[in-house]
Parts: sequence; C-alpha cells; structure tokens
Amino acid sequence: MSLQTAGAIHFPIHEYCTSIQERHLDTFGHVNNAQYLRLFEEARWEMITSRGYGLEEVRQTQVSTVILECSVRFKREIRLREKIIISTQVESISAKTLCLHHRILKEDGKVASESRFTLGCFDLRARKLISLEGDWLAAITGVRN
Amino acid sequence: MSLQTAGAIHFPIHEYCTSIQERHLDTFGHVNNAQYLRLFEEARWEMITSRGYGLEEVRQTQVSTVILECSVRFKREIRLREKIIISTQVESISAKTLCLHHRILKEDGKVASESRFTLGCFDLRARKLISLEGDWLAAITGVRN
Amino acid sequence: MSLQTAGAIHFPIHEYCTSIQERHLDTFGHVNNAQYLRLFEEARWEMITSRGYGLEEVRQTQVSTVILECSVRFKREIRLREKIIISTQVESISAKTLCLHHRILKEDGKVASESRFTLGCFDLRARKLISLEGDWLAAITGVRN
Amino acid sequence: MSLQTAGAIHFPIHEYCTSIQERHLDTFGHVNNAQYLRLFEEARWEMITSRGYGLEEVRQTQVSTVILECSVRFKREIRLREKIIISTQVESISAKTLCLHHRILKEDGKVASESRFTLGCFDLRARKLISLEGDWLAAITGVRN
Repeated sequence: MSLQTAGAIHFPIHEYCTSIQERHLDTFGHVNNAQYLRLFEEARWEMITSRGYGLEEVRQTQVSTVILECSVRFKREIRLREKIIISTQVESISAKTLCLHHRILKEDGKVASESRFTLGCFDLRARKLISLEGDWLAAITGVRN
Repeated sequence: MSLQTAGAIHFPIHEYCTSIQERHLDTFGHVNNAQYLRLFEEARWEMITSRGYGLEEVRQTQVSTVILECSVRFKREIRLREKIIISTQVESISAKTLCLHHRILKEDGKVASESRFTLGCFDLRARKLISLEGDWLAAITGVRN
Repeated sequence: MSLQTAGAIHFPIHEYCTSIQERHLDTFGHVNNAQYLRLFEEARWEMITSRGYGLEEVRQTQVSTVILECSVRFKREIRLREKIIISTQVESISAKTLCLHHRILKEDGKVASESRFTLGCFDLRARKLISLEGDWLAAITGVRN
Repeated sequence: MSLQTAGAIHFPIHEYCTSIQERHLDTFGHVNNAQYLRLFEEARWEMITSRGYGLEEVRQTQVSTVILECSVRFKREIRLREKIIISTQVESISAKTLCLHHRILKEDGKVASESRFTLGCFDLRARKLISLEGDWLAAITGVRN
C-alpha cells in the first residue's frame, strides 16, 4: 500500500519556532508578503533536515522539492520580536504532487497566516517532475511507507 | 459612477521589463518561490510610481496597499540573464478589495508564472482597511474616476 | 568623566549565537560577503535590544546608528547548519564616532571572520551626526556613564 | 610578461548603471550597509559577464572569485529612485590576490561610497586559492595577457 492510496492516514504536524527580527521588516516596519514565503521555506528546510533529508542529501540524490503552486492568506500582522510557530502538515497526496498546509501562529495563539503549497518531486539533473517516492517523500510527509 | 460598479470597464495592462540576475538564484541555481513575490512587488512599485503614487506619496498620505491573499502558479523556469516582462492588471474590484492579475512572460513569450493578489487599501496610522479610493485607487487601477 | 576620556575602560563583549541556514547560501552553496554584513547587523540589533534600546526606542527618540566605515576579513568558510557565535565589543571611542569589533567564531572555535565598524550616532529627523550620548551610547557600549 | 609585473599597466574602468528601488530600503527608508555589498556584487557580475566569464563559465571551469577582505566607506546617502553608477577597476595585483576599487556615484556626480575588495581566484572543487590566471583574470581586470 502506498501513501497515495492510504486515505485514512494521519500525517504528523511539524512545528518550527522562530521569531521576527529587524531584517524581516520592510520600509513600513511591516513583514512583507515575500518574507512569509521565506519563512515557510525555512520551516520546510527545518522539517526535512530534522527528518534526515537536508541539503546534503538533496545534493547526493539530486532529488528535490519543486513548488508548483501556492496560495497564502495574510490574516493578522506579526510584529517585531514576536515569537511565532510555523506548523507544516501534508493535507493530501496524489501520484505526482502533494499539498502541504502551513500555518503561522502568533504568540497569542491566533493564526497570522495560512497557506497551501502544491509540491512535486524534482529530478535536478533531468529538470523534470518524477513520482513521489523514497526518502524525500518520507521526509516531507513524516511517514515511512 | 464608481469603478466598483463599472462592470464593463477595461483596466489597462502595465508592463515591467527586467531580467534575472545572479542575486535571484538560490543554492540550486533556481529562482526560488519567494523571489517571484519580490518580482511581483517590484512590478507593483514600478506601476504605481509611474502613475504618480510612489513611496513618497504613501508616506505623505499614510495610505498604502495591503496584501490580503495571493495565489501563484509556477509554470516554467526562468533562467539567469533571461529578460522577462511582468504584466499587471486589475481583474475585478469590490468596495473594500480588488484582485490584481500578474503574469511573468519569458523571453520566448511563454508564461513562466501567473498570480492573483487580493489587495486592500490600508490606513497606516489606524492600521486598518479603508474603502478603495482616491489617488491610490487611480494608481493601482490605471483609471481615474 | 565621559566614556571618551575613560582610557582604561573595559567594554563588555556581547555574544550572539545563531546558525547558518539554507537562506544564507548563494548559488555556490557559499555564505556570500553581503550575508556576513547581515549577520553582523543582526548581532548589533540583538545586542542593543537586549540592552533596552531596540527598534521601538529608535522610533521614539529618532536617534539611531549610522555606519560610516567597515572593514571585514573573511578568513574561513562557514558551513550550512554550523553553529556560530558573533562577538561584539567597542574597541575605541571618540567624540563623534566609535569603533566596534566583531568576530564570527566557528563551531571549532576558529575565527571565520573579523570586522571593524566605525559608527556614529544619527539624528533621523535632522539627517545628521550628533554627539555620542545617552541611552544609545549605553546600549552600544554596554557601559552606563 | 605577466599582469602582475606590468607596473605601468592601465586597467580599464567598468561602469554599471542601476537605480535604487523600494526593495533596497530598510525599515528606516535607508539603504543599509549590507545592500551596498550586494550592489558591488551585482556590479562585479555585470562586469565579468560582459567580458565573457559569467556564471555559466564559472560552473564549467569551477574557478571563481573569492573575497578575502573588503573595506567600505559610506560617505553620502543614496535615495530611493536615484540613478547611480558603480565603477569598478583593478587597483593593484600580486601573484595570488588583486585589489578591486569600487565607487558608487550619485546622480549629482558625488561619491556615495568607496570600497576596496581584496580578491583571490578560487578552485571550487579543491576549495582553495589558486594563482590568478586565464579567462577569469582577463574578465576581472579587463586586460588580456
């Protein structure tokens, strides 16, 4: 049975804690939309590295994540020096893509931002999408087949 | 008659030409998803500045753009030194928000990325959304009431 | 007696611990020279914020740091996921400027980079250098007059 | 005769024209010290790419620039939307390193910043300095042996 057919599977939530620094602020003292994407990216690297598939493994296997689509809702401002938690969890999965759900939680527990990223598994040498599989898939989902 | 009720209105397309530089590349030599958002942001600044509502006017009026949502599709890679065109056009408009449609066109004319941003008009002093109006609205839409 | 005439004064060393993430790497997998300056900047913000003079105080007083000169030596590579310590200490001080000494220490204790920044105290409203004084000076030096 | 012994040689000045955008500004509306280093880096890439040794050539030869030291003076503010010229010229050269002199000229012709970078030629595979030579040296100096 593959992950893709495992309808009832429960994917674990990964939590990454960080805080907002001066470098995150734009000229209005605001955390800009592009910075949110950098924060989500950071959370994904922390997650897959902690699950044994970091940059070193990407270089060895030449198999990496590619972002196909994303949608992001910016719901509440996050402030300088605020401690935030970025949660990440697979929401759904098919043969060639999966959907990752991120949330940024503010210090008071409210949701600052919510996003969905559609990811594929990318062969860096052939420059093309391949089937979701192996160690990469285990690191993204948190589940071993 | 306001822009919001002007169903048949044609909003002009703004085109911003730029090219991909070494600083846009991540450690895989790839233009990363967050960089696309920075490119879209750059295109919006170029657009509103060329229409007379740049950072100086934002500071004077304390009325600025706030991004409420975005969705982005990453369709084709853009390569180092490639010349790109980022087109921007209002797609729809309501009392409090509008939807901006961006496309990144590659040198060969194909679409590298397509995105929709839901924007509001933000009072920087009161930290709240206000009605879409005035010079800000004219600069975003390219249409004077 | 002012700090400037206090020849024998010992200025405390501030240490900021952080680690190298994927976002620090350029397209060669290398931490680029500009990133070192961002790391030094981060260390200074951490230092003055911890001493009670963060961005909020800068906004209230409209008195901030301005960098007049810097010199940086890049001595050893720092690697992805390496834990580093950035130390910061005032080295010398005159009426209008002071010299800040930073070092980046690698996990093995060797010096990855060493830099000296000549700073002034800047009145953000008048856009000009002012005498080194008050809470700003205490936060930068770690010494109260 | 090598470049290193050619005492009286005149090295050509490369000029790179660009302008300050909103993304260059920090939370004080100021172009931050780290941004200057990114601008100098941009100028170097433009220079060597225009002389036939861009990123593609770096990847093929695995020979690239490494920054050993830099010193930068920040003399005048550059403002949003200001057109600037970054000039680059080799100032001196020895067997293993060379010194590059950059200046940022403001729209009014005054010098905003001046810097000197000590560079070496780096073998990316062996991770070590090699002698200055070949196409890389020609691209950096603007002079063919």
